[in-house]
Amino acid sequence: MVIEGKAGGPSRAAPKGRKSRAAKSPAAQATAADGWELQKTQAVPPPSPAHSNRSGGGGASRRLPLLGGKSYPQKNAEILSSQYGLHLFLAGLLLMFAWAVHAAGIAKSAVFSYLITLMLLQLLWMAWYICRRYAQKRLIQDKDTHAGARWLKCGITLFAVITLIMDSFKIGYFVGFSSCLSITEGIFPVTHAVHTLLQVYFLWCHVKDIIQSFKTLERFGVIHSVFTNLLLWTNGVLTESKHQLNEHKERLITLGFGNISMELDDHAPYCNCTIPALCSIFSQGIYYLYPFNIEYHILASTMLYVLWKNIGRKVEHLQQSKTSFKFQGKTMGTILGLVVFSTTIAVVVVYLIQIGRSKIKSELALIMFYLYAITVLTLMCAAGIVALLIYRLEDKSLDASKNPARKLDADLLVGTASGSWLLSWGSILAIICAQSHPTYSWYNLPYSILVIIEKYIQNLFIIESIHREQERTNDDIKTLRILTVSNGSILSIAPSYKEIYNGTSDIESRELPHMFSGNSCLPESSGSSTLDEDKIQANTPITLSSSDFSIYNGNMMINNKRRILKNIAAFLFLCNLSLWIPPAFGCRPEYDNGLEEMVFGFEPWIIVVNLAMPFSIFYRMHSAASLFEVSCKI
Amino acid sequence: MVIEGKAGGPSRAAPKGRKSRAAKSPAAQATAADGWELQKTQAVPPPSPAHSNRSGGGGASRRLPLLGGKSYPQKNAEILSSQYGLHLFLAGLLLMFAWAVHAAGIAKSAVFSYLITLMLLQLLWMAWYICRRYAQKRLIQDKDTHAGARWLKCGITLFAVITLIMDSFKIGYFVGFSSCLSITEGIFPVTHAVHTLLQVYFLWCHVKDIIQSFKTLERFGVIHSVFTNLLLWTNGVLTESKHQLNEHKERLITLGFGNISMELDDHAPYCNCTIPALCSIFSQGIYYLYPFNIEYHILASTMLYVLWKNIGRKVEHLQQSKTSFKFQGKTMGTILGLVVFSTTIAVVVVYLIQIGRSKIKSELALIMFYLYAITVLTLMCAAGIVALLIYRLEDKSLDASKNPARKLDADLLVGTASGSWLLSWGSILAIICAQSHPTYSWYNLPYSILVIIEKYIQNLFIIESIHREQERTNDDIKTLRILTVSNGSILSIAPSYKEIYNGTSDIESRELPHMFSGNSCLPESSGSSTLDEDKIQANTPITLSSSDFSIYNGNMMINNKRRILKNIAAFLFLCNLSLWIPPAFGCRPEYDNGLEEMVFGFEPWIIVVNLAMPFSIFYRMHSAASLFEVSCKI
Repeated sequence: MVIEGKAGGPSRAAPKGRKSRAAKSPAAQATAADGWELQKTQAVPPPSPAHSNRSGGGGASRRLPLLGGKSYPQKNAEILSSQYGLHLFLAGLLLMFAWAVHAAGIAKSAVFSYLITLMLLQLLWMAWYICRRYAQKRLIQDKDTHAGARWLKCGITLFAVITLIMDSFKIGYFVGFSSCLSITEGIFPVTHAVHTLLQVYFLWCHVKDIIQSFKTLERFGVIHSVFTNLLLWTNGVLTESKHQLNEHKERLITLGFGNISMELDDHAPYCNCTIPALCSIFSQGIYYLYPFNIEYHILASTMLYVLWKNIGRKVEHLQQSKTSFKFQGKTMGTILGLVVFSTTIAVVVVYLIQIGRSKIKSELALIMFYLYAITVLTLMCAAGIVALLIYRLEDKSLDASKNPARKLDADLLVGTASGSWLLSWGSILAIICAQSHPTYSWYNLPYSILVIIEKYIQNLFIIESIHREQERTNDDIKTLRILTVSNGSILSIAPSYKEIYNGTSDIESRELPHMFSGNSCLPESSGSSTLDEDKIQANTPITLSSSDFSIYNGNMMINNKRRILKNIAAFLFLCNLSLWIPPAFGCRPEYDNGLEEMVFGFEPWIIVVNLAMPFSIFYRMHSAASLFEVSCKI
Repeated sequence: MVIEGKAGGPSRAAPKGRKSRAAKSPAAQATAADGWELQKTQAVPPPSPAHSNRSGGGGASRRLPLLGGKSYPQKNAEILSSQYGLHLFLAGLLLMFAWAVHAAGIAKSAVFSYLITLMLLQLLWMAWYICRRYAQKRLIQDKDTHAGARWLKCGITLFAVITLIMDSFKIGYFVGFSSCLSITEGIFPVTHAVHTLLQVYFLWCHVKDIIQSFKTLERFGVIHSVFTNLLLWTNGVLTESKHQLNEHKERLITLGFGNISMELDDHAPYCNCTIPALCSIFSQGIYYLYPFNIEYHILASTMLYVLWKNIGRKVEHLQQSKTSFKFQGKTMGTILGLVVFSTTIAVVVVYLIQIGRSKIKSELALIMFYLYAITVLTLMCAAGIVALLIYRLEDKSLDASKNPARKLDADLLVGTASGSWLLSWGSILAIICAQSHPTYSWYNLPYSILVIIEKYIQNLFIIESIHREQERTNDDIKTLRILTVSNGSILSIAPSYKEIYNGTSDIESRELPHMFSGNSCLPESSGSSTLDEDKIQANTPITLSSSDFSIYNGNMMINNKRRILKNIAAFLFLCNLSLWIPPAFGCRPEYDNGLEEMVFGFEPWIIVVNLAMPFSIFYRMHSAASLFEVSCKI
């Protein structure tokens, strides 16, 4: 099978080009006059290219190409808006960088002011968009069924709720220390809370939209939202990293490493809290809620990016593929996964209590963590290999249709995995080059290698899974077949086959023979494909021959394989969710290990960890989300 | 016009899926048996999906899906190989990082050994590929006409020749200091020279190939080459940055800034050269040749990446669009560009002589550079805006067909521009936040803003230009028309029109009316489009009416516009080439300015500059290459 990553070929672009030119024909101008560029309402058939070229030559919109805006090529609008977004991001990034390195004259309030401005702008745009859509409700809108699955929306809502709690904590903290904190530290959480509320509403209602009106303007709005969320993510990551680094430095001070330059960042405000008990709860609580806030923003950012990619897109076949989660048939994987999940929480708690207490306790905590992680990663590798082997047994074609949501998923998996791969290669290099090796460093080597292998295999599995064509139709037929056979009565298979064959659409009927020959590990399956239409045309009841039994066996085999795949996906989902917890909540052996810091030097290694870790953490959440989708789909 | 970035839709993927399945049909297996997966030799028409599904069910290749390798889904092969490449790159990157931060136990020889291994592997793969292609010569191979234009090949050959000179310098340097240099420093340039020779040959002969056999294996070979070149680029950039930083530190020491920690890297070897005069020439010369070596590797890397993206691709219409460079009609732009080019060289020479001599001389050098850059950038902005306005006047549809080379070009333009945007935002932030402002810092502000605006506009211009459909056919007809009219004889335009109309293909004839209505700024042009087929059918000589004059005027207008565009492209090409020189050869006001270092701190700002500068430099060379293509195409 030859599959290409990018979708949307010239055959698709050609009718689009015609369509937009058709919009300038006199018939369409009447509808376009009120400012809406309504593609759906146009009942005029697209004219032939020759005709449209000529009629397009002297149109009214042609005379005002600069004022109309509608004739602006969308490729340019894409570049214009993406460059605008990049600038927003780069300026914000540098502001945060300046703040992080204590640049002269740049305070935290500058960063906050910038973020508040961006959020307010996004709020304005979202409000405008929602109002306009509401006024325009009667129109049928294109929707991208692949974008913003319901469970993804539920996930983001959960994170948003926790983010709102965090915002209220921040407001409380500001009230407590209001006498010595900058006013922006109070305005920021308030704006952020409003922003979160409206954005979640926006994502629930409009993330599937395929925007066809005011395309150039909407591109700016959406890309602004994408990069605002990305900056809020960066801000969260930065605050969290500073906090983690401070904790690490405190531990090092406890352990007696005085030689490293130790200036603690992000200290408490220089005044007393009006309600001391609450302030301490707030400041502690905020850091436990940060990981969720970080995930919320990156998730919102990816969803908005898909919305941006979908602007002006023409969806050809709107297949409503509803995938609902069923616990059924995943018991084994789920139970194993839950065991891993609870063990992880226990390990993280023990680790956080033990680390930094004393040298021996720290070493024991590290060994415990490595042994636990090696076990889990080995299991995950094995599960991934089994899943890939099962896929290799059934030679199915992959779906290569255009799907921005899926393409982003695949790119993000490989891109964000690179973050943790960088850390792993750092550890491997450090172990090879170090002069002295503490005991626990030998556990670090298999751990680092396993991290690399596990993500390599898992990415292959997820990307192949999301590219496989769904077998819903096959499934329904199979259930019917199995019911027929397992009832024990000697029934003809031919009539039931024919009934479906004639009753269903052309596409579904084409998929039918595949079901009979779907299992390649059975030598008889090639025989089953000889079941030709003569048999069907005969329409006479036939008894169950050996070939029918082989079909039954084949179906059993397929069902078994699917059950294994389902369990593997459920297990991997829970494992990834588990492995998200340790780095997100401060269990970072890359800091505490000490070996890499010795080889690379404290500062260089800390820079590498702080740059790579956010991607590594996001990888786990993102792969968990993808695996959830896979487990629903199989 | 609705244009989508990615190409290759489901309508394309479907026949491909069929084709690969068809390869497993008994008819095709005979050809595939000898190990080649030859798509071109298959004369068997693609079977219907239903048929192929059934016949594919029991094929021989199905029984050995894991051993055959041919049935391996190409999406997986893509992910497998790209992840492999990423690992090569990340491991190499960390090795270099470790060397750069003086990690304990990691010497320069480790980096060299790694690079030598990668180059040898690539050499083996290239030799195997070239031999196999030679043996397989009789077969017609698919070619991507968009990939590897001839001028690009000429460019890379030029850089490769300079790289070979650099390698010989390095060998000479090694011979001189052989007593105290590691043996890897001698092996590296030798391997590199062989690698360069074979790679240039490989790129000349095979960069347009669309690989259809051994796809999974070839993917690994090509991606290995991509990342080997990228690592060699990184290595070059790192060496160059170290050298620049050392020069900067030396200048600072001369100016009396002793408070910054000054440890010079990359010192001369600890033994005497056997031929001192030559050694000094070699070590000096190497650093003047490095920028070309750096460009060579990044260019090779991008060309190989396009080859990788093309693996297994199915090209639908092979339009041989030969664009040859003509000096004609670009005189004005070229002359202006050459003036800029020679001024740049003069400015760089003066800058490098003056900077770091004394405080006043340094300031004068900076002011001179800023004033010069502001002038050039303003001119470039104006040129870009004029070009975009001309594009807006003619409402042409953009080509959205799949074209990996073009997509990469566009992505690289925006991606690498971000490097210099980051630096510009840093400067702007520093100017806003700095407590004290030396005179020259006020020139820095407009300079930084202009860098941002100029790249913003230029990217829009280039990306729109490379997406515009070529107007070659129109051009030929126009020349004919103008010749006819300008001869002064009162000739019929109808017969000449009809002659072409009947003689050319359907596609070309459809483009014809567009030519008459191509100019929208003329109100009469709408009238010219009423020139209907009745007139042509009449076939009787008619005299030149006012409408004919308007056509003549329209053509003149189009020609004028094209001449302006050509000149702009030529001018921008030379300007970009000019602006490549200052940062590549050590004229970096971001270092010498001092303001940013004061605000951000010396180390943080140096890190930002060293990370962003390579992309900023590459942007200029890449945009120059793209503008050359544009100036040939218009």
